[in-house]
Amino acid sequence: MPVISFQPSGKNIEAKAGSNLLEVAREAGVEIIAPCGGKGTCGKCIVRISSGNVESNSLGILTADELAGGYVLACKTQINDTPVTVEVPEQIARKGGKFTSSEEDCGLIREELFPHNWQFDPLALKWCVSVAEAKLEDGLSDLDRLSQAIQKDWGKNEVVYSFEVIRKVADTIREDNGNVTITMIREPGRSHIIGIEAGNKTEQHYGVAIDIGTTTVSVQLIYLPDGKVVGTQTDYNDQITCGLDVISRINYAAKAGNLEELRKRILDTLNKLLAKLETMHHIESHDIYNAVISGNTTMIHLLLGLTPEYIRLEPYTPTILQAPYLTASEVGIDINPQSWVYLSPSVGSYVGGDISAGILCTDLATDSEDLSLFIDIGTNGEIVIGNCDFMMTCACSAGPAFEGGGIKCGMRAALGAIEKVEIDPKTADAKYQTIGDVKPKGICGSGMISLLAKLLLTGWIDPAGKLDRSRPSKFIKIEKRSASYIIVPAEESDNGKEIVINEVDFENIIRTKAAIYSACSLILNQVEMSFDDISNIYIAGGFGRFLDLEMSITIGLLPDLDRSNFKYIGNSSLMGTYMVLMSQEFREKQLDIAKRMTYIDLSSDPKYMDQYMSALFLPHTDKSLFPSVKI
Amino acid sequence: MPVISFQPSGKNIEAKAGSNLLEVAREAGVEIIAPCGGKGTCGKCIVRISSGNVESNSLGILTADELAGGYVLACKTQINDTPVTVEVPEQIARKGGKFTSSEEDCGLIREELFPHNWQFDPLALKWCVSVAEAKLEDGLSDLDRLSQAIQKDWGKNEVVYSFEVIRKVADTIREDNGNVTITMIREPGRSHIIGIEAGNKTEQHYGVAIDIGTTTVSVQLIYLPDGKVVGTQTDYNDQITCGLDVISRINYAAKAGNLEELRKRILDTLNKLLAKLETMHHIESHDIYNAVISGNTTMIHLLLGLTPEYIRLEPYTPTILQAPYLTASEVGIDINPQSWVYLSPSVGSYVGGDISAGILCTDLATDSEDLSLFIDIGTNGEIVIGNCDFMMTCACSAGPAFEGGGIKCGMRAALGAIEKVEIDPKTADAKYQTIGDVKPKGICGSGMISLLAKLLLTGWIDPAGKLDRSRPSKFIKIEKRSASYIIVPAEESDNGKEIVINEVDFENIIRTKAAIYSACSLILNQVEMSFDDISNIYIAGGFGRFLDLEMSITIGLLPDLDRSNFKYIGNSSLMGTYMVLMSQEFREKQLDIAKRMTYIDLSSDPKYMDQYMSALFLPHTDKSLFPSVKI
Repeated sequence: MPVISFQPSGKNIEAKAGSNLLEVAREAGVEIIAPCGGKGTCGKCIVRISSGNVESNSLGILTADELAGGYVLACKTQINDTPVTVEVPEQIARKGGKFTSSEEDCGLIREELFPHNWQFDPLALKWCVSVAEAKLEDGLSDLDRLSQAIQKDWGKNEVVYSFEVIRKVADTIREDNGNVTITMIREPGRSHIIGIEAGNKTEQHYGVAIDIGTTTVSVQLIYLPDGKVVGTQTDYNDQITCGLDVISRINYAAKAGNLEELRKRILDTLNKLLAKLETMHHIESHDIYNAVISGNTTMIHLLLGLTPEYIRLEPYTPTILQAPYLTASEVGIDINPQSWVYLSPSVGSYVGGDISAGILCTDLATDSEDLSLFIDIGTNGEIVIGNCDFMMTCACSAGPAFEGGGIKCGMRAALGAIEKVEIDPKTADAKYQTIGDVKPKGICGSGMISLLAKLLLTGWIDPAGKLDRSRPSKFIKIEKRSASYIIVPAEESDNGKEIVINEVDFENIIRTKAAIYSACSLILNQVEMSFDDISNIYIAGGFGRFLDLEMSITIGLLPDLDRSNFKYIGNSSLMGTYMVLMSQEFREKQLDIAKRMTYIDLSSDPKYMDQYMSALFLPHTDKSLFPSVKI
Repeated sequence: MPVISFQPSGKNIEAKAGSNLLEVAREAGVEIIAPCGGKGTCGKCIVRISSGNVESNSLGILTADELAGGYVLACKTQINDTPVTVEVPEQIARKGGKFTSSEEDCGLIREELFPHNWQFDPLALKWCVSVAEAKLEDGLSDLDRLSQAIQKDWGKNEVVYSFEVIRKVADTIREDNGNVTITMIREPGRSHIIGIEAGNKTEQHYGVAIDIGTTTVSVQLIYLPDGKVVGTQTDYNDQITCGLDVISRINYAAKAGNLEELRKRILDTLNKLLAKLETMHHIESHDIYNAVISGNTTMIHLLLGLTPEYIRLEPYTPTILQAPYLTASEVGIDINPQSWVYLSPSVGSYVGGDISAGILCTDLATDSEDLSLFIDIGTNGEIVIGNCDFMMTCACSAGPAFEGGGIKCGMRAALGAIEKVEIDPKTADAKYQTIGDVKPKGICGSGMISLLAKLLLTGWIDPAGKLDRSRPSKFIKIEKRSASYIIVPAEESDNGKEIVINEVDFENIIRTKAAIYSACSLILNQVEMSFDDISNIYIAGGFGRFLDLEMSITIGLLPDLDRSNFKYIGNSSLMGTYMVLMSQEFREKQLDIAKRMTYIDLSSDPKYMDQYMSALFLPHTDKSLFPSVKI
């Protein structure tokens, strides 16, 4: 079989004649982004054949120049029976590219928003019991005596044991004179015993709250005896290379073996984050007996290995909205294998458990009659409007721009990310602030909003997102029909390369903000209300420590309303997940929220495209909607 | 490392100096029986060192002649740093020895004893439902619609799904227009869905009833749509080589790794029997969704990998009496992995689920006020006495003689086993009848009883089990102090070798019958009753098609009572297991039986040894107890 070599990685693999180049690259461990899932519609998987010959179809996407230069779409290229060298451009590659990873937690969690005055009642609790000594005359088994000890403290609930506990019970109850610590999950009428340890081990008790986003994944480790957050780790979802949004992941999953690959990728991401937290904080994975996971419906399907195909096809039906409790070993996450995993309930195919968790952090979860609007800005944007009487929700595909996806120097809110920018009106020179006040590595969502707004206010870009070519500036580079803007010169950046944003990036950001804004308008329209009826606007998303409200309004991401109505609540999905992990009260409230929400399918609304097109300007085609924005 | 060669198998293995020879043999796959579990107390693991030298301790068990001939106790022998050749005598080896295996079912089940007029309600049932088509407007997941379809037919029970079902549901409900067959286990308030298949698969539905004895294991395959027994397979428990009775198995299990070995051995036995049934009857293992297992408490502990140590030690405490439902994949039996496995509840450490199952086949499970005695003759003998008002039970170690264990030419009731014998009073020539009317292979329990009784009645043995040396007969061979009796001359037998029984075998059989009889007397004594108070006597055991009542009384195994009071019910544990598999009514009754039984520990009764010693004669030291036996 001919050898296929990939550059610059230098990876080699043998491949049969007729093999698909994109698949060969994947087998070789070379990551080529294909957001459309290999359907040939996105034109992103461009590579260059520098030696050897292949069969390829450019589908009219590549220019004559590109074809002449040896460029092909990897997904539409077949290997012949000859060796081939393939150059993989540094386009949307994970490392050194747009999804820069970082080792640190950076304020994704706003602990000041955690609720107060709730009952501490985690999913699984640890409890010390004293098991009576065996006696010939009572005819009781070890398990009988353990059950009696548990029922003495916790009432006559039926006690049910996991097999692993049964296997350990005889030796464990004899190790420390009958003193054992059990780990227990209480359901109505039934107590499930999922752990047993000799002696008092109630202090060795941890839980994890997990938020699985399409682009970004966060894992939070909690010390359960006092509910304190020990640490949070965030990274990109390792599924990114299989498609940037949920639809391309679903397309990718359709091919044999790919669903399992996607499942393994997200488990890999989670288990690496877990391992990092355990190492950093010196804890053992078997002491983690609690896990709650929230994510959009597609992410949960992929995590569980459920075919997501019917989410994409009309009538958009998920396999499950509310998963049963599963064990950690069934799911595949590396905590105590007997631990039960609780999954936040989904509302529908496009509004998931991340939203039912996020709503817990808002007035929508209270008895308030005031109308609230909840906007979760992620790769999928989800919007909820309502009060104690009703809740409507919709979703839109915002894209991963604000998380660093599809933006040349984009990154998520992590150490070294530019989060705030000032622009010199005369020179276009940028002053910037980075997370952690270190040398800049890239720009995160809040930085992009700040940058775009400041360039707009200083006139360096126009409402269509085009850079001003009429005024010379050393920070603006014009190449053919496209221009780019240098935020950070090479000598100031972390890796010695310029941090640059171009007009294609601006387009991506504008598309994202347009999707969010038009979805908000449309859902209000559908419930026959307007922005003026809203009392509270909750903004959620992974923007890091802060989101510049004024600038968000300036670019038309958020509506031009009384500033005091807005609340930025950060990663509300993760916070809500923490609440669900810690309290039965919130688990019940979340189920109620998920059931009460009505999903509206925006894509079937004929006004959707009009609204979206009108929002593709800064701040909006209809300037009267943004009276306070002076440009 | 030196090479250790075993003869006649020709197996070789390298072993470190200092290794224990018994363990080296096991590693090499050479089976040497060690009933005491390698403690050096039974003196059964005798092998001959034909070349090389070893360190050995004969513990005074071996004679000077034996030591001179190179004989050693394998369990007390260490390898030196030199190669060794070991001859393993054909003593209690599994093949060609006393535990002859057979390929056929031979009447262990007496279907005429199956109950009538009970409600057909197997553990898991298959049911066809029609799932409504997905609709955009109803917001229901696939699982929601499946639950609705199930609840329509089965009421508002909560529906709980196993993870594997959730993973299959989306594609399965779309394969045949929403027509699916679910496999369901109904508990109060909850229906567990453990299987889903497209279309109507209700006809592909099987169950297995399993009886795990210390010596003999039986698996019965049942076609659930009509409850018919498809086939039964029986074999020796592969744990035999680790000890012949429960105590030696428990001793064996104490060493690191051995418990897991014992677990694997019984799973191996079960899975081979299952595979044989599946092949013979052309069924797929995934169509077996029901399993009930009965066995004595130790066997169940070993099957589940639970440490049995505390069963042996005062106060004799098992880990569990009633196991929770476990899945087939947890237990390790090769049927549908999602299948729930139900284990018959035990009464105590020495009276197990085989007895709570067996009692179901008797009047003890009815409202009768008549006093019944139930005697289960196995390697462990268990006795139950009672009526609708009370039930007392005890156990005794009878030994495996009647199942072929410890008897030179013994075998279980299988094809070719001698099951009945007539003796010529003058010549001592035996006329025999074999199971299947084929050439004889060995002698089973019913044959032993018949043989012993006829030899006694014709005077060829005396009440102590010694052969008559005064009358010459070509069927009696006298060697030194021991004599043996040729049942079948070499030319008539299946393998061309004589079938012989010797005085040591007679002793073993007499010990077995003495243990059973004295336990019966003793428990009656404890409840202040006598044999005359008994209305029904149920005899259970793996004797094959029949047990000769008259001959059983003649040797003093059974009491000399009105013959019409006796009922031979065969393998009642397997039959009861079938009943439990087929009906919720019997599952409940069995639980009630297990709870109601009171266990009496005979070993603490000072009269036990006296009673036992008195019973070590044929029929008994006190002949007045057997007035109808004329010898």
